[in-house]
Amino acid sequence: MPLSPDQQAEITEARKDTQPTLRATAPGMEKHLYTAHPVLDHGFVRVVDYMGDDAAITQAARVSYGRGTKAVSNDEGLIRYLMRHWHSTPFEMCEIKLHVKLPVFVARQWIRHRTANVNEYSARYSILDREFYIPARDSLAAQSATNNQGRGEALEGAEAQRVLDWLREDSNRAYDHYEAMISTAGQQGLARELARMNLPASIYTQWYWKTDLHNLLHFLRLRADSHAQYEIRVYAEAIAAITADWVPFAYKAHQDYRMGGATLSAGALDCVRRMLKGEEVTQENSGMSKGEWREFQGVLGERK
Amino acid sequence: MPLSPDQQAEITEARKDTQPTLRATAPGMEKHLYTAHPVLDHGFVRVVDYMGDDAAITQAARVSYGRGTKAVSNDEGLIRYLMRHWHSTPFEMCEIKLHVKLPVFVARQWIRHRTANVNEYSARYSILDREFYIPARDSLAAQSATNNQGRGEALEGAEAQRVLDWLREDSNRAYDHYEAMISTAGQQGLARELARMNLPASIYTQWYWKTDLHNLLHFLRLRADSHAQYEIRVYAEAIAAITADWVPFAYKAHQDYRMGGATLSAGALDCVRRMLKGEEVTQENSGMSKGEWREFQGVLGERK
Amino acid sequence: MPLSPDQQAEITEARKDTQPTLRATAPGMEKHLYTAHPVLDHGFVRVVDYMGDDAAITQAARVSYGRGTKAVSNDEGLIRYLMRHWHSTPFEMCEIKLHVKLPVFVARQWIRHRTANVNEYSARYSILDREFYIPARDSLAAQSATNNQGRGEALEGAEAQRVLDWLREDSNRAYDHYEAMISTAGQQGLARELARMNLPASIYTQWYWKTDLHNLLHFLRLRADSHAQYEIRVYAEAIAAITADWVPFAYKAHQDYRMGGATLSAGALDCVRRMLKGEEVTQENSGMSKGEWREFQGVLGERK
Amino acid sequence: MPLSPDQQAEITEARKDTQPTLRATAPGMEKHLYTAHPVLDHGFVRVVDYMGDDAAITQAARVSYGRGTKAVSNDEGLIRYLMRHWHSTPFEMCEIKLHVKLPVFVARQWIRHRTANVNEYSARYSILDREFYIPARDSLAAQSATNNQGRGEALEGAEAQRVLDWLREDSNRAYDHYEAMISTAGQQGLARELARMNLPASIYTQWYWKTDLHNLLHFLRLRADSHAQYEIRVYAEAIAAITADWVPFAYKAHQDYRMGGATLSAGALDCVRRMLKGEEVTQENSGMSKGEWREFQGVLGERK
Repeated sequence: MPLSPDQQAEITEARKDTQPTLRATAPGMEKHLYTAHPVLDHGFVRVVDYMGDDAAITQAARVSYGRGTKAVSNDEGLIRYLMRHWHSTPFEMCEIKLHVKLPVFVARQWIRHRTANVNEYSARYSILDREFYIPARDSLAAQSATNNQGRGEALEGAEAQRVLDWLREDSNRAYDHYEAMISTAGQQGLARELARMNLPASIYTQWYWKTDLHNLLHFLRLRADSHAQYEIRVYAEAIAAITADWVPFAYKAHQDYRMGGATLSAGALDCVRRMLKGEEVTQENSGMSKGEWREFQGVLGERK
Repeated sequence: MPLSPDQQAEITEARKDTQPTLRATAPGMEKHLYTAHPVLDHGFVRVVDYMGDDAAITQAARVSYGRGTKAVSNDEGLIRYLMRHWHSTPFEMCEIKLHVKLPVFVARQWIRHRTANVNEYSARYSILDREFYIPARDSLAAQSATNNQGRGEALEGAEAQRVLDWLREDSNRAYDHYEAMISTAGQQGLARELARMNLPASIYTQWYWKTDLHNLLHFLRLRADSHAQYEIRVYAEAIAAITADWVPFAYKAHQDYRMGGATLSAGALDCVRRMLKGEEVTQENSGMSKGEWREFQGVLGERK
Repeated sequence: MPLSPDQQAEITEARKDTQPTLRATAPGMEKHLYTAHPVLDHGFVRVVDYMGDDAAITQAARVSYGRGTKAVSNDEGLIRYLMRHWHSTPFEMCEIKLHVKLPVFVARQWIRHRTANVNEYSARYSILDREFYIPARDSLAAQSATNNQGRGEALEGAEAQRVLDWLREDSNRAYDHYEAMISTAGQQGLARELARMNLPASIYTQWYWKTDLHNLLHFLRLRADSHAQYEIRVYAEAIAAITADWVPFAYKAHQDYRMGGATLSAGALDCVRRMLKGEEVTQENSGMSKGEWREFQGVLGERK
Repeated sequence: MPLSPDQQAEITEARKDTQPTLRATAPGMEKHLYTAHPVLDHGFVRVVDYMGDDAAITQAARVSYGRGTKAVSNDEGLIRYLMRHWHSTPFEMCEIKLHVKLPVFVARQWIRHRTANVNEYSARYSILDREFYIPARDSLAAQSATNNQGRGEALEGAEAQRVLDWLREDSNRAYDHYEAMISTAGQQGLARELARMNLPASIYTQWYWKTDLHNLLHFLRLRADSHAQYEIRVYAEAIAAITADWVPFAYKAHQDYRMGGATLSAGALDCVRRMLKGEEVTQENSGMSKGEWREFQGVLGERK
């Protein structure tokens, strides 16, 4: 169960009644407020607060570009124009604050997005809970044979079972010792800031994470991508679903121009032009390396 | 008149009715929403949106520090503790978005605060209005004789009048020529992005400016300070008054620990200790330079 | 003459003799050190310092990706891989520090790149020189009839002459009054921080500007682009030429994948696939707006 | 042994001969270049590159403040002035790049300093080494009884021995299983990105970390402080010693005004003034809370 009784009580309290406000509200987002969306076996994502909506993006763009932007007939068209032309500052005018519970090894990837505000649970001050990420059996992927950072097929049979057993046993033993080390029953008790280092990276932590929409979309581009590790991707996907309800025009434009789009190099564009003229273009006469050509073929092939 | 009829109409519309929201609301801030607080002769500051309140700061701190923070009996005490110990991340959990109209030379100082989101009116796309900052007569300060960056007494008589006349005439002539250069009546018309360079730094621009509370307080510390140029200080003071209504505990703590406080060097602390023991400490035996000693005397003297 | 005698003397002194160092050096960059490359009528760009070279990028990448990166046979191949896959952090391991002299209206665009360190000449403390940007006659462009932010043809004949006269006269008159206002001969003398607001945006300022290679390349992508205003583009081009000598592999990869490349949306990619299958695709059946289709045609057309 | 044979060979190669450069060099820093300073049981800090020296700080300040700064007679005086008045931008003109090997739980604190460039060893791509931080016996501190985040006395006797045994046994067992899970001998082999989550936070990682001097000094203020966890403080102290050789004036000013100084609140300053007039000030009549008063007494007492 991802939420503690205290947290659940706090959410129930917060959802009890609404306040009147003069601020812009996003109806699609109000329904997500405080609700904990479960991710992985013990994690969650919940919206704590937000600022702005699709109209806040165009409002800011119109301050910048003045009359010019009035020519664009509607908000969606303007948002698509801004996205297409990499005018990122109007998207920074929206902000989101999330409460996230996540394994430490996921947190270590996530924190690399520097343009965000974070308050993480401190294991120097407080005692961590006995909660570890144990993958579902079909997420127990083998190392990819072709890709240093990728996953292959799911492990099978005895091998899978042995992995699951070790992950469970080692984390529980580590936690038993953690508890025993910090205990002050009949002993001094090791400092929490030291004892925590016995705990594995599968342990759950939690934080408040606040960022603007531009940086959120950048996070989604990298982390909701098929190359991202599965365990962070499921968080990105949960946030993407929330974002689609919050700022539907911006989300749609991001899907079209970023998630579903591709950047072609000067050489790749030249190949496309030659192909459209009917020329037979191969890796050999493309000017591309083998890796680049393979990726180029992927872009021209059917989308998943 | 700071606001255009269009902007006034937009504000009236926005203030017409409230929306229900589940988000935290700050009652003291709701009353400021959209209201344009006049600054200088044509400028203003108005709150477009905000996120969070005093409780959002302690809520984030409690995620980080867990049980420890429950020992602190109330929100104000915890906020003072965080401020005193430079725990800045919980203050980053609040956000404010302002619409500001300000002279270009003020904007040039302001933009140096890099940790903010900005959408400025673009003079490449749009035509600037004929609005220039002309100081009030008692703000027409002379260069300080003792301080390279300071102001002395106000100019008097004919000198003051001559300055005001030049500021008015030069800016109006520059604007006449700006208009004449971009005009397409009977001529090609110079590009706006070029014509604007004839306009002086006293011309007004406007922008949306969004930042978190930690960075806002840092801005106030530097810009609401007596060493800041008067023309940016009045903006900082207007924002300070709004902040006092938005997050009263945080604002009060900032006044006590930052605005009204002082940082003493190791040497200065040592002097204080010697003085408290009854020793006669002078600049000569203080180990401080003359400039440092003068500032130290200022700190120990009565506050303005 | 862009450099003052003092600055020229400082440069001559600095170039007089070399120091031995254990740091990585980029031979192509050493020759640029301190040399002021002229830009516009009074501006310049000169390299004050730099850190790292192409090898510093791959060195950092190999810390991150370990054995995987050893498979890539050489530094250039690895740099191209990193650029293609948006692995930006290794490029952040190089740093450059420039001294730039530039008109204020260019500085106002430039400063929007927030991830940089800047020390600008302060007109609060010091007195500005009488140097204004006056465009060359063939840079006196008309406003584009089709594009709110663009330029059309150069102005001609009497119109061009009138513009040049006004730019010269207004800036000189403003400077005369600036001098007269701050003068302390027989009067108090207006504070510099106030007097400067009479000066137009064509006046030159200067700053030290320091940034990492990733952010420098992003700056070049936006500012060396054909949509950038001519007056900032010439600075970007001067810096691009320096960068090509500093980190030739990274620069070349950036040209191929960013400057000369293009991002296609999901819809545009789908059109390319349909066209390659022989289908007749028009704006009407493309799913694109008119503006988007026009841009798409531009990408598929011949490069300039 | 902190450095691998490969790394040692790379260092020896790099130190073999110097290159001539026109850049500013800091003789005190050249001697540190590449040398790995040991920290904790397996960690190290080594300087990979640097940009600038004390003179680079004053050079940048003189661009900003022009003539005014020439009045300050020497570089050290100007640097002290800048530090005292929180003029931070000139300090940003120096840059340092470090290669650091450190336990993961230390890395997790360190990475919270967002204004830095980082390339960390990736456990998705590569295999971690069997190296864990095992505290020296006298660093095995008990939890402080009075301070939620502090340490008390060192553990003694059997309790200390039991902690050391667990830390060693649990980390080694976790590593045995890590190796066995990723092994492809007779099995598929678990993906590295999953297997790593079994490893405790005491395992060593490494990264390239690059930051400017202003942010480095801020890092030192927080992490070389007595309230910082011992295991990060020893890294900060190693870096502080390097910094003292690199920019001796800036380092000395930082020691005086930041590390050894203290910020007094408005209320505390008022108490100092009353005490200097001979008034008896107690916590009760001070207007301070108990915690604040205790800290205030600490500041006025003798320094450690």
